[in-house]
Amino acid sequence: MDFKKMLANNHVKPYLLKARYGIEKESQRVDLSGNLAKTDHPKSISIRDEHPYIQRDFSETQMELITPVTETLKELFDYLAAIHDIACRSMGDNEMLWPLSMPPQLPKKDEDIVIAKLKSVENVRYRQSLSHLYGRRKQMICGIHFNFEFGDELIQALFNIQSEIKDYRQFKEEIYLKVTRNYLHYRWIVTYFYGTSPNSEENFFEEDSLKRAVRSIRSSKYGFTNSDDVKVSYSSIQNYLSDLSLMIKRGLLLEEKELYAPMRLRGGHHVSDLANHGVHYIELRNLDLNPFETYGISYKQSEFLHLFLIYLLWKDEGNNCDEWVKLGDLYNDAVALEHPLEHTQFEIDAKKIIDEMEHVVEILDLSISDTLFVHLRDMLMDPSKTLAGRLYKESEKSSQSKVATYIAKENYKKSWDKPYQLTGFTDMELSTQILMSDCLQQGIQVEVLDRQDQFLKLQLKDHVEYVKNGNMTSKDSYVSSLIMENKTVTKKILQQHEFRVPKGEEFQTIEQALRSYDLFSTKPFVVKPKSTNYGLGISIFKEGSNYEDYQKAITLAFKEDSSILLEEFIKGTEYRFFVLNDKVYAVLLRIPANVKGDGKHTIEELVIQKNSNPLRGRDHRTPLESIQLGELENLMLKGQGYQMDSIPENDEIIYLRENSNISTGGDSIDVTDQIPDEYKKIAVDAVSALGVEICGIDLIIENTEVPAANKNAYGIIEANFNPSMYMHIYPYKGKSRRLTMNIIHYLFPELLQSQESKVVKLGVPLAKCESTTVT
Amino acid sequence: MDFKKMLANNHVKPYLLKARYGIEKESQRVDLSGNLAKTDHPKSISIRDEHPYIQRDFSETQMELITPVTETLKELFDYLAAIHDIACRSMGDNEMLWPLSMPPQLPKKDEDIVIAKLKSVENVRYRQSLSHLYGRRKQMICGIHFNFEFGDELIQALFNIQSEIKDYRQFKEEIYLKVTRNYLHYRWIVTYFYGTSPNSEENFFEEDSLKRAVRSIRSSKYGFTNSDDVKVSYSSIQNYLSDLSLMIKRGLLLEEKELYAPMRLRGGHHVSDLANHGVHYIELRNLDLNPFETYGISYKQSEFLHLFLIYLLWKDEGNNCDEWVKLGDLYNDAVALEHPLEHTQFEIDAKKIIDEMEHVVEILDLSISDTLFVHLRDMLMDPSKTLAGRLYKESEKSSQSKVATYIAKENYKKSWDKPYQLTGFTDMELSTQILMSDCLQQGIQVEVLDRQDQFLKLQLKDHVEYVKNGNMTSKDSYVSSLIMENKTVTKKILQQHEFRVPKGEEFQTIEQALRSYDLFSTKPFVVKPKSTNYGLGISIFKEGSNYEDYQKAITLAFKEDSSILLEEFIKGTEYRFFVLNDKVYAVLLRIPANVKGDGKHTIEELVIQKNSNPLRGRDHRTPLESIQLGELENLMLKGQGYQMDSIPENDEIIYLRENSNISTGGDSIDVTDQIPDEYKKIAVDAVSALGVEICGIDLIIENTEVPAANKNAYGIIEANFNPSMYMHIYPYKGKSRRLTMNIIHYLFPELLQSQESKVVKLGVPLAKCESTTVT
Repeated sequence: MDFKKMLANNHVKPYLLKARYGIEKESQRVDLSGNLAKTDHPKSISIRDEHPYIQRDFSETQMELITPVTETLKELFDYLAAIHDIACRSMGDNEMLWPLSMPPQLPKKDEDIVIAKLKSVENVRYRQSLSHLYGRRKQMICGIHFNFEFGDELIQALFNIQSEIKDYRQFKEEIYLKVTRNYLHYRWIVTYFYGTSPNSEENFFEEDSLKRAVRSIRSSKYGFTNSDDVKVSYSSIQNYLSDLSLMIKRGLLLEEKELYAPMRLRGGHHVSDLANHGVHYIELRNLDLNPFETYGISYKQSEFLHLFLIYLLWKDEGNNCDEWVKLGDLYNDAVALEHPLEHTQFEIDAKKIIDEMEHVVEILDLSISDTLFVHLRDMLMDPSKTLAGRLYKESEKSSQSKVATYIAKENYKKSWDKPYQLTGFTDMELSTQILMSDCLQQGIQVEVLDRQDQFLKLQLKDHVEYVKNGNMTSKDSYVSSLIMENKTVTKKILQQHEFRVPKGEEFQTIEQALRSYDLFSTKPFVVKPKSTNYGLGISIFKEGSNYEDYQKAITLAFKEDSSILLEEFIKGTEYRFFVLNDKVYAVLLRIPANVKGDGKHTIEELVIQKNSNPLRGRDHRTPLESIQLGELENLMLKGQGYQMDSIPENDEIIYLRENSNISTGGDSIDVTDQIPDEYKKIAVDAVSALGVEICGIDLIIENTEVPAANKNAYGIIEANFNPSMYMHIYPYKGKSRRLTMNIIHYLFPELLQSQESKVVKLGVPLAKCESTTVT
Repeated sequence: MDFKKMLANNHVKPYLLKARYGIEKESQRVDLSGNLAKTDHPKSISIRDEHPYIQRDFSETQMELITPVTETLKELFDYLAAIHDIACRSMGDNEMLWPLSMPPQLPKKDEDIVIAKLKSVENVRYRQSLSHLYGRRKQMICGIHFNFEFGDELIQALFNIQSEIKDYRQFKEEIYLKVTRNYLHYRWIVTYFYGTSPNSEENFFEEDSLKRAVRSIRSSKYGFTNSDDVKVSYSSIQNYLSDLSLMIKRGLLLEEKELYAPMRLRGGHHVSDLANHGVHYIELRNLDLNPFETYGISYKQSEFLHLFLIYLLWKDEGNNCDEWVKLGDLYNDAVALEHPLEHTQFEIDAKKIIDEMEHVVEILDLSISDTLFVHLRDMLMDPSKTLAGRLYKESEKSSQSKVATYIAKENYKKSWDKPYQLTGFTDMELSTQILMSDCLQQGIQVEVLDRQDQFLKLQLKDHVEYVKNGNMTSKDSYVSSLIMENKTVTKKILQQHEFRVPKGEEFQTIEQALRSYDLFSTKPFVVKPKSTNYGLGISIFKEGSNYEDYQKAITLAFKEDSSILLEEFIKGTEYRFFVLNDKVYAVLLRIPANVKGDGKHTIEELVIQKNSNPLRGRDHRTPLESIQLGELENLMLKGQGYQMDSIPENDEIIYLRENSNISTGGDSIDVTDQIPDEYKKIAVDAVSALGVEICGIDLIIENTEVPAANKNAYGIIEANFNPSMYMHIYPYKGKSRRLTMNIIHYLFPELLQSQESKVVKLGVPLAKCESTTVT
C-alpha cells in the first residue's frame, strides 16, 4: 500500500491529527532530602489495587500515575497535572517525587527494596519472580509510557480509499505493525533527543558495568531489557503472538507482559485482548522521565511523538522486516551509549529525518507548533541542549542527585502553592475542582463531559453518577430544583408546612408594586428580584421607607428580573445551613464585606490590603472573593458618613456592603459546632418539606440561645439548589467542612462500606490556608 | 367597639380588601331540549363522593361545582370557569346545565326524582329523610353559596388597635357575628338586586301556593326554608350552638347542616369545627343563580358582596340583636315576594345604604369598580334592570323555560367552542391547561403555585406532587434534566451506550468552527446552537456546503448560543417518541410548514387559508402554530424557485420551512401504531441510558421497514426534557394520545387502583377538532 499517497488524499487529510492518548508515569517517592521513602504508599489514597489513577508499580515506593484516555494533548496534560497534584498532596508534606528515571541511592541490600504491598497475592508473587530474574535494583528504574491510538475516523478514511485489504481489523493491524517496525528501527532519534538517564547513583549496578556517562542507561542494554534470547517477529500479529507464546513455553518470559519491548502492541486493557480484538493502540515504552518538566514529559515532546508516528506511517520501510527491527536495536543501543555531550554518529540521518518530517507537515497541511523543528535542529546541532546533555551539564556543577533533589523540591512547592486548586482544571468552578480532587484521590473515575458546563461523569466500577456544578446530582428530583429556583413557590410550600417565612407579595410590574406602598411603608422590608442570585438587585429597609426610596428599590430589582418580591424584613443573623440527605453538615455565618481600621490606613488602602490575601480572587476560582470598590460600596460608606479616603479608628469595623454574600467580598465563618441542634432540625425539616436532598438553606435567627419553637425565633429566607461548597471547605475563619467528600460518600455509599477507605481526608493541610488569612 | 373608627385606622386600611373566597354552585342537568336529565352523574368524572370540585347535591341530576378557596376574586372566577368547563364537557354533548335556581319541569311523581346515588349509605339515608320532610321538589331548587373570610392580616390589624377583647378567637367571633346579624337584617337588598327566581315551572308546588311572579321564590318563605319553629340566636357563638343543639334534640332538625339559614357561620369543613375552632368564615346562602352569567354569578356581584360585608362591619346594628335578625327576615320576605317589575317598598332605605356604601369606599380608600354604584342605582331606579326584572321580561316574550333553554344552549356552545382550552387559565401553556383539565375531572386538587411559571401543586388525599410545565416532575432526577439540556453531554452518554448519534464537534468561537470547514465541506451536515430550542439558528446542508454558506450558518447559530454544534446530517425521517416510565406512549411525525396547491391560489393565500384553522394560533396556546411568512420562509421558497405570489399546481406540496418544528407551523401526524416495536425499544433504551423517566426523544429513521439493528438504520438527534404534549393530544392528523392522563396515572398510580376510575377519558369529542382540520 502506498501510504504516502493515501495520507495525502483529500478524504483523509481532515482527520490526520485525530488521535487518542494516554500516559503512565512512574516515579520514586523520596523524603525532602532526596532519600528513598521508607513509608508505605499513602493511606489517604484509596489503596485499592485497581485505583484508576494512582498505583504502585514494582516497589512500594514506586508510584505510578495513569491518565485516562483523552482525545487531545491538552486534555492529556490537564489530567496528568491534576493526578500529579493529588498524588503529591496525598503523600503529605514530608515526601516528594524523584524526577529522574534512574532511582535515588538504593539500599545496599537488594532485599531491603520493598516490593509493592498489593492485596493480590498473584501480583506480589509475580514481582517476587521478577526480582529473582532481574534483581530489584533494575525494577526501580522509572519511565513514561505513552499510549497512542490513531483516530478511528482516520483509519476508516484510509481504509475507504483502498481496496487491497478487505478486512478492517486486518487493515488496522497493518497500519500499527508498519508504525511499530519503523518505530523500532528509528527510535534511536527519540533516544538522542529525549533520553535522560546519563548516570546512575552509586552501587546501582551490582558489578560496576557502566562507569561512564551516556545518553540513556534506561534505553540501553544496561537498562530495562529482557535477555538476548527473547525475540519476537513484528511481521504479522499471528507471528508476534506465536513467538510470544513460544518464549513463555521456553521459560524465557514469565508472562506476556514481561516483554520489555520499546513499543508494545495493545489490544486493550488485558494482554489477551490483542488476540481477541486485534490492535487497539500502541504503547511507547522507551521514554525516560524528563526532569525539566514537572510532569515528566513536555507537551512539545508529545507533539513530536505524534508527528513522528504519522511520519513513520508515511515513511517506507525495509524489505526484511525482522532485519529492519533488529538493525533498529543496534542503532538505538549505540546512540543510548554515546556521551551526552557528544554529537551522534547518526547526525546526517537525523537531519534527513527532521527534513522529511517537515516536508510531511507541509504536504499534509498539519498544524504543528511553529518552533518544533527549530527546537529539534537546535538539539541536533548542540548535544548539550538535549535532555541528557542538560542534565549532565547541570550535574557537573554538584551532583546528579543534588540536581534531582533541587528539582523535586521545586515541584513539591508548586503542588502545595494553591492547595485548593486542581492544576489542569483551574478554569473550572472551585467546588468542582475540589470535588474532582477528592474523586481522583478516592479512585473514582472522573470524565469531564462538558468543561464550560462543569459537567462530570463519575464512575466507581460499574456505578456511574453524573454531577453538574459540584452538587447537582441524580439524588435530587427535577421538580425540587425548580421549586428552589422559584422563590414564591418555595415560600408557599414552606408556609403550607408551617415554617416561618417572610410575609410578602410578588409583583410583575412597577405600577403594581408602587400601589402596595402602604403595605410596607412603615415596616422593615426587603425588595428583591424573584429568581436571580448573588444578592443582585436587593434593597433592605430596616425602618420602612419613604416613597422615593421605595420607588428606586423597585426599579433596581426589576432590572434583574421580570418579577420581584416585596417581603417583610426579618431581624437577626443570617446563617447558611448545608443540608445533605437529612443532615446538616455545615453552618456558615457570612459577614458583609468589611475592613478593620488601624487608625492609619484609609478604607481604600485597607481594602487593597485585605484583598492581597491569596485566598481572595474573582469569579469563584478562589475560596474568597475580593472586596469591590464600586457604586454600591461607595453608597454604603456614604450612608455611614465615610468616604474611600476616610481613616477608620483602630479596631473599628467598616462595612462596605449591606448583603453578606461571599461573592461580593463577604467573610465566611464556620459555626457548625455552635448552632443548637434544634435549629439544625428546622433546617433539615424545611429541606425535607421541599422534597430536596442537597440544599443550602438560609435561616435568619435573632438569638440562637432562644428556643427554636418560640414565636418568630427564626425565619427562612431562601433555599438554594446549587449551594456553594468551597466557602464551607475554605472558610475565612473556623473549621473546614469537606462537603465534597460528603457528596462523594452520598453518591457512592459503597466507598464507606469497604474497610480500607475509612481514612478519606485529602492530605491538604488546611492550617496552611488558615494561617495566611488576614484577620 | 367602634368599628367605624377602627376600620379607618391607618394600620388597618392597607389590609381592608384582603379576603378569601369560595363558591359552591348547584345546577340541574338537562337534555338539549331543557328536560331534566334521566342519566346518571357522568362516568367520566371520577365519581368518588369526596370529589373536590364536582359533586352531586340532593338529586342525581343536581350537579354541585365547588371552587377551592382563593385569595382574589379573579382567581375565584378562574376556577369557577374552569370547573364549569370540565363539568360541562364531562357530561358529554347531549346534556347541558339549567341556568335557573328554579328547576326545569319536574316529574309528576315526587318519587321519580332520583336521589343522588352516593356510595355513602349514611348520605343517601339523610337525603331520603329530607325528601320525607320537605318533599323532593323543594330540594331541587339550586343556588349559589358564597364563602367569605376576612383576611387574617385585617383581623389581626383590627385586633391590635383595640384593648377591649383580649382573646383573638373571641374578637374574631365578634366580627363575624356582627356581620352575620347585619347581613340577616339587611339581606333584603341582595334579594332586590340579585334575586332571580320569579316563577316556577308547572306543578313545582304541589298545591298552587304561589301563582304570581315575585322577585325570588327561593329566598322567600316558599323557597328553601326550615319550619317556622327553627330559630337560633346570633348573640354569641355559645347561644348559637346551644340553640342548634336544642333544635336537634327537639327533632326540628336532623343534623346541624339542615339549618337553611341565609348566612351560616363556619368553623371549617365540618360542622363540629365551629365549636372546636371558632368562626373561620361565613357562608352566604341566599344567592339565586344569575342566568345572565355563564357561571351563575358575576364578578361585579361578588365585588358588591365583599364591599357589602365590609359595610356591614362598619355599620352600627340594632340593640336587641335577636329582634334585629328577626326584622331582617320579615323585610326580606316582603322584598322577595314583590313583583319583579315593581319598585321596592324599601327604596328610600336602599338608596341610603348605597350612599353609605359609597361613603365607606371614600373614607376607607377602597378601590372598587368605578361603575358599581352607577349600576346599583340604575337597578334601584328601574326594577326591570334587576335580575328578576330582566328574567321576567325576557320570559314574557315566550316562557321562562324557553329562555332558560336558550341560555343553557348558548353556554353549552361556549364550553365546546375550544375544547382544548381550560377557561380561566387560557394564559397558561396548552399542555398545562390540558393537564389541569384532566386533574379537575379526576378529582385531583390543583393549586396554581405560580401562574407565569406554570407551577402546579397536585394533591390526591395526602399525596402531593409538584409539576411545572406539564411534565417536569418529581419522577425525573435533577441531573437527568441537565443532561438533556446539554446536547453535547446527551450525545456523549448515548454514544457511550452504543446508540448511533450524529458525529460532530462543539465550538466556542466562530474562528474555531471555521477552521474545521474541511471536516464537513463535502458531507451532509447540520449547524446548530448547543442548547436553544424550537429550531432557532439551525442550518442544514444536505450536500455539503461552500465556505461562504458555511460561514453564514455558523454566524447564525452563534446568535442563539455561545456554543454551537457541527454534526453530520443523518438522512431519513425524524420521529418524536414520547417516552414515559420505560414505555412509548406516542410517536409523532412532524412535517415542515407547508401548503398544498390548488392551481388557483398564491402561496401567500394558501398560507392565510391554512392559518384560518382555529386550531392554529401563536405561542403554544393552540394545538397548532400559524405558518409564518418571514425571512426564512421567503428564503426557503426562493431556494425552490418560488415567491410568495407564485401559484402552485393542483396537489403540489410547497414547503415553507426546512425544519419540522410544530412551533414554526409544521404539521403533526400521529404514527404511534405504525412504528415497529423495535424502534420503540430503541427509544425506550436510549431514554433509560440517560436515566430519564419523561422524555421526548427524536429519532431519524431512513426506512421503518428496515430492521433497527441494521447499521445506520437510525440516528438519535435530541432528547427533550420538557416535551410538548399537546401536539400528541391534538395532532393535525391521526389518533389523539392523551399524554396528560398518562402523566397523571404515573404520578398518582393509586387512581388506577380504584375500580371506579378505570373510565378516565375526558369527554372531549376529538372528532370535533379533527373535522375542522384542513387537509
